[in-house]
Amino acid sequence: MSLVVADLRELASLTGDKSGAQRLCWTDGWDRARRWLEAKCAELPVELETDEAANQWITLRGQSDDKLVIGGHLDSVTNGGWLDGSLNVLAGLEVLRGIAASGRAPITVAVVSWADEEGARFGRSLFGSSAAAGSLDVTSVRDLRDAAGTMLPEALARYGVDLGRAGRSRRWLSNVKAYLELHIEQGPVLEARGLPLGVVVGTCGVRRHRVRFTGQSAHSGSTPMDIRRDALMAAARLALAVRDIAVQNGGVGTVGVIRAEPGLPTIVPGICDLVIDQRHLDLAALDRMLDQAQGAASSIAVEDRVEVEWSLVYKTDPVRFDPELIEICEAAVFEVSSSGHRMPSGPLHDATSMAQAGIPSGMIFVRSLGGLSHCKEEDSAPEDLELSVRALDRAVHRTMAWIAERSRP
Amino acid sequence: MSLVVADLRELASLTGDKSGAQRLCWTDGWDRARRWLEAKCAELPVELETDEAANQWITLRGQSDDKLVIGGHLDSVTNGGWLDGSLNVLAGLEVLRGIAASGRAPITVAVVSWADEEGARFGRSLFGSSAAAGSLDVTSVRDLRDAAGTMLPEALARYGVDLGRAGRSRRWLSNVKAYLELHIEQGPVLEARGLPLGVVVGTCGVRRHRVRFTGQSAHSGSTPMDIRRDALMAAARLALAVRDIAVQNGGVGTVGVIRAEPGLPTIVPGICDLVIDQRHLDLAALDRMLDQAQGAASSIAVEDRVEVEWSLVYKTDPVRFDPELIEICEAAVFEVSSSGHRMPSGPLHDATSMAQAGIPSGMIFVRSLGGLSHCKEEDSAPEDLELSVRALDRAVHRTMAWIAERSRP
Repeated sequence: MSLVVADLRELASLTGDKSGAQRLCWTDGWDRARRWLEAKCAELPVELETDEAANQWITLRGQSDDKLVIGGHLDSVTNGGWLDGSLNVLAGLEVLRGIAASGRAPITVAVVSWADEEGARFGRSLFGSSAAAGSLDVTSVRDLRDAAGTMLPEALARYGVDLGRAGRSRRWLSNVKAYLELHIEQGPVLEARGLPLGVVVGTCGVRRHRVRFTGQSAHSGSTPMDIRRDALMAAARLALAVRDIAVQNGGVGTVGVIRAEPGLPTIVPGICDLVIDQRHLDLAALDRMLDQAQGAASSIAVEDRVEVEWSLVYKTDPVRFDPELIEICEAAVFEVSSSGHRMPSGPLHDATSMAQAGIPSGMIFVRSLGGLSHCKEEDSAPEDLELSVRALDRAVHRTMAWIAERSRP
Repeated sequence: MSLVVADLRELASLTGDKSGAQRLCWTDGWDRARRWLEAKCAELPVELETDEAANQWITLRGQSDDKLVIGGHLDSVTNGGWLDGSLNVLAGLEVLRGIAASGRAPITVAVVSWADEEGARFGRSLFGSSAAAGSLDVTSVRDLRDAAGTMLPEALARYGVDLGRAGRSRRWLSNVKAYLELHIEQGPVLEARGLPLGVVVGTCGVRRHRVRFTGQSAHSGSTPMDIRRDALMAAARLALAVRDIAVQNGGVGTVGVIRAEPGLPTIVPGICDLVIDQRHLDLAALDRMLDQAQGAASSIAVEDRVEVEWSLVYKTDPVRFDPELIEICEAAVFEVSSSGHRMPSGPLHDATSMAQAGIPSGMIFVRSLGGLSHCKEEDSAPEDLELSVRALDRAVHRTMAWIAERSRP
């Protein structure tokens, strides 16, 4: 038995309550988790450093400076789960323990605990990993505020981070030859297939838009149906079109937010806003899904005599992981579970930032119970967690050999 | 020129601000309007009394105790319009002035300013008129609270009303032989037809329900389309069904409120609530509309693998006005505008309470600009308002004759 499940339980009891994990980034709960992680490393022959973006690096020096990084994150959403992000970090730490116990490794291996993967407080996810990857646009986050009105730079400063200098964390990626991440699936696919582990081939691209239909608010009793300009009915039609388009194209499409104005039982809504999130692993298919949704919205607007306006909320292209690391992860998964299943990830992960920065990256998923995540019910069977740690360990050793092989003159 | 438009402007300037009329019932703005109305009656030979439900009665005694009542209300919604309710009261007052000036009338004529027609603070409309009509269920309103948590009985007590005694206002309806009401249309039908006035044949019945679909919230990225149980998609389908059903049955159907939980861009909604308001002048058609909507919801629930739950918010049956008073109002409208258009009212009015209490009732509508009401933009052309006062005056005189005729031994 590894220490991972025990470590996770200890962390949960230190930083959680009956509503779930309370490690929102840039708060004291998160900071407490960071201090706890540092203490966990005390008996290991590692170097502990925190970079300019608040990422924590735990480095086990090997015979060469070539580096393999295992990534995760300790921050959670408010009322989050005990596994999301933390499993990755603590499984990585367990792998380091094993390598350290077996003597000096051929290459350097580091565990990184990325800062603010969730973006739950300021709405910008993958903060630390994108800072290190060079893809954090400082001007686009400088003015972000949390729900209480606190500005992002101010919250960061409390934890010693100068936003203008966060990009300097990039230097930590020099010599990094591969990046591996273990994560809970946060979805129902592995459970539905009866598999404990999966091999992630990439993360889906996302097109997220706010769509506003504007018609004319009117009294629900006195306005005949044929002269209404009902914004909510147009929104309902578009929601269903988004679903059909996702099914037709083999992607996913979601309307998670809908809001009607004025929002009274007796008033035909003059305005209806919805947020549409479309995802696909294939860029061309993703762009086709968006085109089709925009075409549907325009047709609906004409037919229902309303106006429609799209504004971009978030956009990222699909990222494919490294074919050789996918094979390595597949072999590792097969080794411990006698099965393998390649799958895309709908959610983004820090591995997305790494792959975008050109670092060969690979990911392993472990089965989530009920597909639940970002809630206190988030869970995985202990035996699955143990299996996932072993799979990560196998993948790390195979990747170390792969790096050593490639760097041979 | 009558004094009505001048009176309305005076009232608006006394009790309104740049956001509209501020005469929310059971507040000081409303009470100020009541004191102002009393002062307006000073030079008239009328009796002023306020009944147990805070309705104000302005009575001009005639040769007999048989009574014709002209009704309206001074209370407005928050940020309301200058005409809704007040036009009725002040047009009635103008008609009384004319009758008083021409000597003793054959019957008694009273103007009543009903309390809390809008129900905007506690969500229960037609308070005063239903108390007088005997249709106010005290137990169903006793526990109502406003947005600040104040209980209805407490708010009423501030203005001298004991909820338990409000039903005693019923005695004011003895000897009432007819009820007339002039009101702005609050809809776009007369404007679309190019007509200044309309004759109301009744008020539509209403079936208002809250519908909750319950599926399973899930991550929008990691949950394939075919295993989702998306409550919002089910709600969208029902909204469109409600529209189709209204069109097919010649009624109206509205979804004014929709709310998805948890309401985040990246989560498939596990819960979606909507409020459905269906109206029709024909009871059988109204019940058919509800049946069809409930049938559609059940089919959708099965197909989309979600649960559906209906709860009644409000229900009232259609009310037809008195055929002879409809004819009288039609003749009066024709006399002043050389046209007449019979139409139902989607919104309820105090006349609904009176007709339900068995009092022969009739209503005249005056054209609204843009169909707008319950907002500061609510307006009607001054010439239309003048015409409407003349039509009410004609209708009152015709009704006085009709009452006198019927009471002849």
